[in-house]
Amino acid sequence: MGKLSIILYSGTEDKLIPAGVIGQGAAALGMDVQIFVTGWAMMRFTKKASEPVWPKEFEHMVPALMEGMKKANAPSWMEMLKEAKSMGAKIYVCSLMATIMGLKKEDFNDLVDDIVGVATFLQNAEGGQVIFI
Amino acid sequence: MGKLSIILYSGTEDKLIPAGVIGQGAAALGMDVQIFVTGWAMMRFTKKASEPVWPKEFEHMVPALMEGMKKANAPSWMEMLKEAKSMGAKIYVCSLMATIMGLKKEDFNDLVDDIVGVATFLQNAEGGQVIFI
Amino acid sequence: MGKLSIILYSGTEDKLIPAGVIGQGAAALGMDVQIFVTGWAMMRFTKKASEPVWPKEFEHMVPALMEGMKKANAPSWMEMLKEAKSMGAKIYVCSLMATIMGLKKEDFNDLVDDIVGVATFLQNAEGGQVIFI
Repeated sequence: MGKLSIILYSGTEDKLIPAGVIGQGAAALGMDVQIFVTGWAMMRFTKKASEPVWPKEFEHMVPALMEGMKKANAPSWMEMLKEAKSMGAKIYVCSLMATIMGLKKEDFNDLVDDIVGVATFLQNAEGGQVIFI
Repeated sequence: MGKLSIILYSGTEDKLIPAGVIGQGAAALGMDVQIFVTGWAMMRFTKKASEPVWPKEFEHMVPALMEGMKKANAPSWMEMLKEAKSMGAKIYVCSLMATIMGLKKEDFNDLVDDIVGVATFLQNAEGGQVIFI
Repeated sequence: MGKLSIILYSGTEDKLIPAGVIGQGAAALGMDVQIFVTGWAMMRFTKKASEPVWPKEFEHMVPALMEGMKKANAPSWMEMLKEAKSMGAKIYVCSLMATIMGLKKEDFNDLVDDIVGVATFLQNAEGGQVIFI
């Protein structure tokens, strides 16, 4: 199996779940996984993380989703990303977005491996699949 | 031409249209197309489908979009997906999301070929292009 | 380095920024970049462009983002796209979406190189990476 790069941007809580599921699933298949955290999503990877935000259009569905995830024993997206990392996945924060929001390496939680620029990300992604979430 | 895999997640009605257009366009070019339906989008593929939901930010544009699609004789996203399937495209529902929402194969409409896990999806997608909508 | 194709659809202002950053970054690396502008995003590429629209969920973050971009001397997404074009990137408008909204080549601003169909876009994208924003 090849290489999968995820640009994690949108930042609503629902969009963090597929990053966890796909990141963990790809790492379990032996794929080379990197996640480039930027945009609003970046604010969920700080030590003092911002509150979860759900899309206005689907707020009425959130209780059913939460209950269903509990019943299915589905791990949280953070746990899935930890699991992906234990299988070799790397999580990088976008240096431009970090600068814009005035954040440094020590402001991010343990999920974050490093702060890198978009050029480094694109070079790492060369020859593999890229998805933007 | 190669292989195109679409992860259809967001679920607002506007995002289903490009899945139809791109899925049909790619299938017509002879590409090997699979669509992995998950997240909020999954609720639009059930027999008792949920109501269409438009993004709050662009609700004011919806009448112009609808009228324009009618004038241009543009088919609905469902018709475009049917057309894509007639040219070989496959549509799969995500098994984790189906479990979370308590849905089984018989709860989905005729567009859905099967329920599969993310590992199967990623293996099918190997070596091709992947987009997340 | 290879080929990168961006489908620019969502249309909220925050999602135009990564199109600029990634498009410019990829072009600077010598990648063959094409951007296919469609959906709501298309209305930001007309001569009489629509007003910027921010996602309701993150409206409270916009002043901090704007101030941070100013402090970091980050160019606007339009300037980044211009820069990408000066390095060879191409920007195309989706012919179906243009027809639906009743727009012609002369209605679009100077960023737009041409109006093309999805089949042409997919053929140009063959063998490269594709992201949907």
